[in-house]
Formats: sequence, C-alpha cells, structure tokens
Amino acid sequence: MSWQLARRAERLNPSTIREILKITERPGIVSLAGGLPSADTFPVEAMRVATERVLREQPREALQYAASEGLGPLREWVAAELGSQGLQCEAGQVLITTGSQQGLDLVGKVLIDPGSTVAVESPTYLGALQAFAPYEPEFHALEGDGEGPRPEAVLAARGARFVYLLPNFQNPSGRCVSAERRHALVDAAAAAGLPIVEDNPYGDLWFDAPPPAPLSARAGVGEGGGAIYLGSFSKVLAPGLRLGYVVAPKAIYPKLLQAKQAADLHTPGFNQRVVFEVIKDGFLREHVPTIRARYKRQRDAMSAALDRHMPAGTTWQVPVGGMFFWLQLPVHIDATALLPRAVEAGMAFVPGSTFFPHGGHANTLRLSFVTASPEQIETAVAALGRVLAAA
Amino acid sequence: MSWQLARRAERLNPSTIREILKITERPGIVSLAGGLPSADTFPVEAMRVATERVLREQPREALQYAASEGLGPLREWVAAELGSQGLQCEAGQVLITTGSQQGLDLVGKVLIDPGSTVAVESPTYLGALQAFAPYEPEFHALEGDGEGPRPEAVLAARGARFVYLLPNFQNPSGRCVSAERRHALVDAAAAAGLPIVEDNPYGDLWFDAPPPAPLSARAGVGEGGGAIYLGSFSKVLAPGLRLGYVVAPKAIYPKLLQAKQAADLHTPGFNQRVVFEVIKDGFLREHVPTIRARYKRQRDAMSAALDRHMPAGTTWQVPVGGMFFWLQLPVHIDATALLPRAVEAGMAFVPGSTFFPHGGHANTLRLSFVTASPEQIETAVAALGRVLAAA
Repeated sequence: MSWQLARRAERLNPSTIREILKITERPGIVSLAGGLPSADTFPVEAMRVATERVLREQPREALQYAASEGLGPLREWVAAELGSQGLQCEAGQVLITTGSQQGLDLVGKVLIDPGSTVAVESPTYLGALQAFAPYEPEFHALEGDGEGPRPEAVLAARGARFVYLLPNFQNPSGRCVSAERRHALVDAAAAAGLPIVEDNPYGDLWFDAPPPAPLSARAGVGEGGGAIYLGSFSKVLAPGLRLGYVVAPKAIYPKLLQAKQAADLHTPGFNQRVVFEVIKDGFLREHVPTIRARYKRQRDAMSAALDRHMPAGTTWQVPVGGMFFWLQLPVHIDATALLPRAVEAGMAFVPGSTFFPHGGHANTLRLSFVTASPEQIETAVAALGRVLAAA
Repeated sequence: MSWQLARRAERLNPSTIREILKITERPGIVSLAGGLPSADTFPVEAMRVATERVLREQPREALQYAASEGLGPLREWVAAELGSQGLQCEAGQVLITTGSQQGLDLVGKVLIDPGSTVAVESPTYLGALQAFAPYEPEFHALEGDGEGPRPEAVLAARGARFVYLLPNFQNPSGRCVSAERRHALVDAAAAAGLPIVEDNPYGDLWFDAPPPAPLSARAGVGEGGGAIYLGSFSKVLAPGLRLGYVVAPKAIYPKLLQAKQAADLHTPGFNQRVVFEVIKDGFLREHVPTIRARYKRQRDAMSAALDRHMPAGTTWQVPVGGMFFWLQLPVHIDATALLPRAVEAGMAFVPGSTFFPHGGHANTLRLSFVTASPEQIETAVAALGRVLAAA
C-alpha cells in the first residue's frame, strides 16, 4: 500500500532536541539541555487532596465529556488572575487548551495560510516553530537586541498574519523585554496593522520583581483588540497535566473554539477540575514564591559558575527570571560540533541554531539551570569551560 | 485591528449538535440526543485507588513532561489487547492520543491536502467530518446498505487519500458490518490502492457476541500495511480522561508522531499512568461486561418502546451493540423541523442530516439509549411517536 502524505507533512520534522535529550539521558551526564521544570516543585500533596476531593464530590462531571471552552470556574479564575496582572478580559474569552502548545497549534490552524508570513523573534520558542510549520508559513525573523525585538523590525513585518512574541524570560534566550520596549513593540504592531500572539509560559518565574504588564494589556484582547494571549499551568504546577489557555478577541475566539473542538473535543475535564481545586483558594500565592526562590538560587549558582569557568570571548546576560542562560560563543565555534565533546566531558546543552527560524547562529547555546543542583551546575559549567577553552 | 483568517478556517463551523444539546438541557426534557456514555458506568472507585497510587509511587514521572509517543507500558497493553482481537501490531506502532478525536485530527493533518478526496460512510461520525474539514478535502460519500458501505462504492473511490470506516455499531447508524462484508471492503480497498482509516470507539460494547475482527487485521498495520486503526478508552472507562490511541504502519507513524508533538507535546502523563494503573491487572475484563449488560437492557427497552409507539412508515434496525438507534422516517418528514415539536412534547433527538457529508436525508434521526433509564426511554419514545403520528 502506498500512502500519500499531505504536502504540509513535509514541514513536520523529528525534533532535534528530542535526539539531544536522548543522548543526555546517559548515566553520568549532567544535562543542562532539558526544557523541563524541576520535579521538586510539583505540588504532589495538594494534587493528592484535590484528586481525592474531585473523585468524591464530582466524579460524574469530572469523568464525562465536557464543554470545549473549558471548565467555567477555571476560565473565571484565569480571567481574574490576568486582570490582576493588568490584562482585562472576560471568562468568555478564555479557551482552556491541552497545554499552551495546543494553543499554538490552534492559532496556526486558524490564522496561517500556506505562503502567508508569520513574524517571529530570532531566536524563538522551538515548539512554536514546530506548531506553525505544518500550516506552511514563511517565517520572518525579527532582528533584536538584549531588550527584545526592535520596533522597526516589527514595522517592517507589515503584511504578516501575526507577530509571535515571548516577552518574559524567553525560551531560549532568557531575555525579558522592558516596559518601554513593550510599549514601542505594541505601538509598532498597531501602526503596521499586525496582530500580536503573546506567549507567556514563564512570566510567573521572576526573581526580583514581576515583569512589566503583558503586551496584550496594551494591544487589547477585547472588542477590536489586537492580541491573542497564551498562558500555561505547566511551570507553576506541573506540565504532566497538560493545561494551558488562550485568551482571544471575540473576532477570533469562535474559530479557535471550533478548531479546539475538532482537535480533541475538550481538554480533560478531570485535569481541569483537579487544577481548579488546587488553585481556587490561593494556593499559587504560597506555592509560586517557593519555585522562584529555588530557581533564583540555581540561577545564582550558574551565574557564578559561568563567571568562574567561561573563557574570554563567551558572553551572556544574567536572566532575571525563567529557566535559561543563553550563551554567545566566539564566532568561529560551532556549538553543534562541540556537543559530543561536552557529552564526553560529562555535561550537555542545546545548540542554539535550532531555535532560529532559518538556522545559523551556530555559536550560540542554551543552558537550563532548574533541573540540576548548584553542585551539579558547578561541575557541568566547569566541564563546558574546559571544552570551550580547548576549542 | 483586522484579523485575517486562514482559508481553512472557513471550513470550521459551530457544531449543530452543541446547539441541540443546549436546547435539550432544559429541565423536564428526556434527551435521547446525547452522544455521551452513561456516567453510571464510570469506575470511580478504581480511579480513586489508581490516582492515589500514582501520586504516591510515581508523582514526579506522572507530573513531568513525557514522551510524545505515550507511556511505554500503556502502549504495550494496547498492542497486546489488539493482538487478542486479531490485530497484530507492536507497541512501537501505538501512539497515545488526547482522545481518539485527536487521532482523527492528526490523520487529517498528515494525509489530507486541500482538494484531495476522502471517502466516508454516509452517514458517518460527525466528529471525523469536523476533524478532517479544516484540511479542505472533498468528501466522497460511500453508498451503503444495512450491512455497511458497498465494496463497489469503495472501488469507485479510487484516488482518494483514504477511506474512513467505522465497522462496529457506528455512530450514528448503530450498524455493525458483517465478517463477509469486512473481507469484501478490505479487498476492494486493496484493489483500489486505498488506505483504510478504521475508527473503533464502540467495538467493546457488544451485546450478544463480539464483532468480527477489525478491518485492520486483514488490511494490516505492519510493514506495507494498508490501515490505520483508532481506539479509545472513552466508552469503556470514561471520556473525561481524554485517552485514545492510533496504530499506524511504520511508513506513516513518524509523521503522525511529529504532528502529535506539534499539536500538544504529549497526552497528559498523569492520565496515562492512572488509566494504566486501573487496567493493567485485567480490570476491564470485569468492568466492560457490566457496561454491556446495562446498555443491552436499555437497548431492549428502546426496541420495545419503538415497537409500541412508532407509527407505520418509520423503520429501524435493532443495534447489536453500541449506543444508538437510527430511524428512517417517511420521506416527507423533516426531522429538523420536527425537533421543536418533540422538545415541546418533552423529548429530544438529533436530526440525521448533520451526519451526512453532503447533508440531505432529512427524514432520519438518531436516538441514544444509554443515558436515559428504561422508564424515561418509554416516556420519550411514546412522546416521539405522538409527534410523528401528528406529522
């Protein structure tokens, strides 16, 4: 039997990161390659209490088919929470998704035609490139600096279907966009008639002060609004629940909802009810600060280790939140070629090239500081330093 | 801000069934319109024990990011279970999905190009039409009879990307395809070079004898195989967990896997581990027969009620499994026009037209017998009989 693949299937590719993570699961390797949160932060006891309660008090509702929009009280919680962060929206604009990755897929499905343009940061979140790619866009890479994409670059993307932005502690670069730059980016997008798709999986993981208000607060998600906002419970509770959300203007919401229904009918109601049970009385106000404190200690450990062990010519910014350091190596060094030597030396990272919409930038790499202990971080960064010095 | 929708978004539509279900949630209505399993069948106590164990013994694994393929032991369980039903496959061919609805979306994403043809039964599962539609196929309706689609119709669909078949107690028609017809269908598909996508959400819900072996057993899902097989835990455990699976030949599996990763990274690991914990020691061998016995009683009640109350000219087959009766009304009666009168009389159904790829067939309707009690079924069918007699 000969199966004929759809043209879009050519845009689906094996994840390079998956392959790297397989390599780095070898015993004896300290992997700084993962994109995972620390399992030490998972609120197991709260989950236990919540699942027990959901199965005792609302088992039929939790285990039955449910509305494609998501659980009403959870949608209300999201709207209230975002309101407190400066993003005004109604529960009716919140669509619960199977992780925020699904939000990216639905956005792609509803907004991208083959050959249309999507403007993305450079580097940007790999999962978004993977979600958008099968809808066959042309990616327009936005030039940027340490503060984020340049407003002029956004202006120059006029005609794109949307501009995809991650203002908070971006994966992979760790960069946080300043309030001034946010204003300028939103104003540039509005001037160019460009909708914004804002992705915020890491915003709660700040170390010293909360990040500025979301881009969507200024661009608006209401009537005539210019933004879609994506959020997630993966980094503040646990990713294994696959629970995220999309907030969209009323002009777009019904189509996202219909695409959601076609994609998986609804996000597991059991998971939605358990998470709502965990968070409804303010659990995250106690819990998230413990994650911040932990990740900040690890960030500090990595910062100190980098200062100690990186040879001259390697540069980085110290991230003020999130999970990642982003390293610029001397231009003659290819991080992909370096990886096998690093693994031999007992550590692993992700080469940065994979995060760029058109590749290149071989002299960059990403390090996660959240799944290794401060001692392991010291060991791994020291090993990286030796490998770099030899290169 | 003006949002430009992708062309495929035009193919997304509000679900007519959603609207009907909203109407029928009014108090005092006995709804036979639902497509839901009975919540009385949900194994709440087994779920409670399993969630408690998973959170005690493997909380970090259950709550962390997980492999896109799904949980290894669950994939092995599926392969072994299908083997016992005559479908030989390896665990490596099993992809765990967020409900089998997601399997349909992934199949559409990987196999359907705009303007390509997909052959479907007539009527067929509405959720499949919804999943495939945004990939912009032309639907080719396969003519059939009480035994299922005709083999000649499959031969005539030559050139389609695949033929989508639901041999067991199909939603909406309730029809089960005989062993002989299965053979003929698979041979016709092979002769026409047509891959088969077999969907089997209801196969375990047989009343007197198991259905014949899956089409995929004859068509093959191995090297050079001609079928993709979709299964689900929604009808034998609970749909609120959103757990299904796809079994695919090695020529297709990697693309489905990459599409899965782009769509939601992975199906919630927590749900996969809980379900595996529930089923691993043979729970379904005890549990599923209780569902069969319950649904059979309700099927009998509806069969008797239809015999008593349907006016001459209305016809149906008695289903030997599944959840639905399918009624053919006299040709001059429009079920959609009839619905408001039925609701007024205290009952609801789903007009059949919505299940046909090109509409029409206004004189058909679907009745579910699994969520109403025998007494409610008697009341509702009697009301339908009065409304039909008056029409």
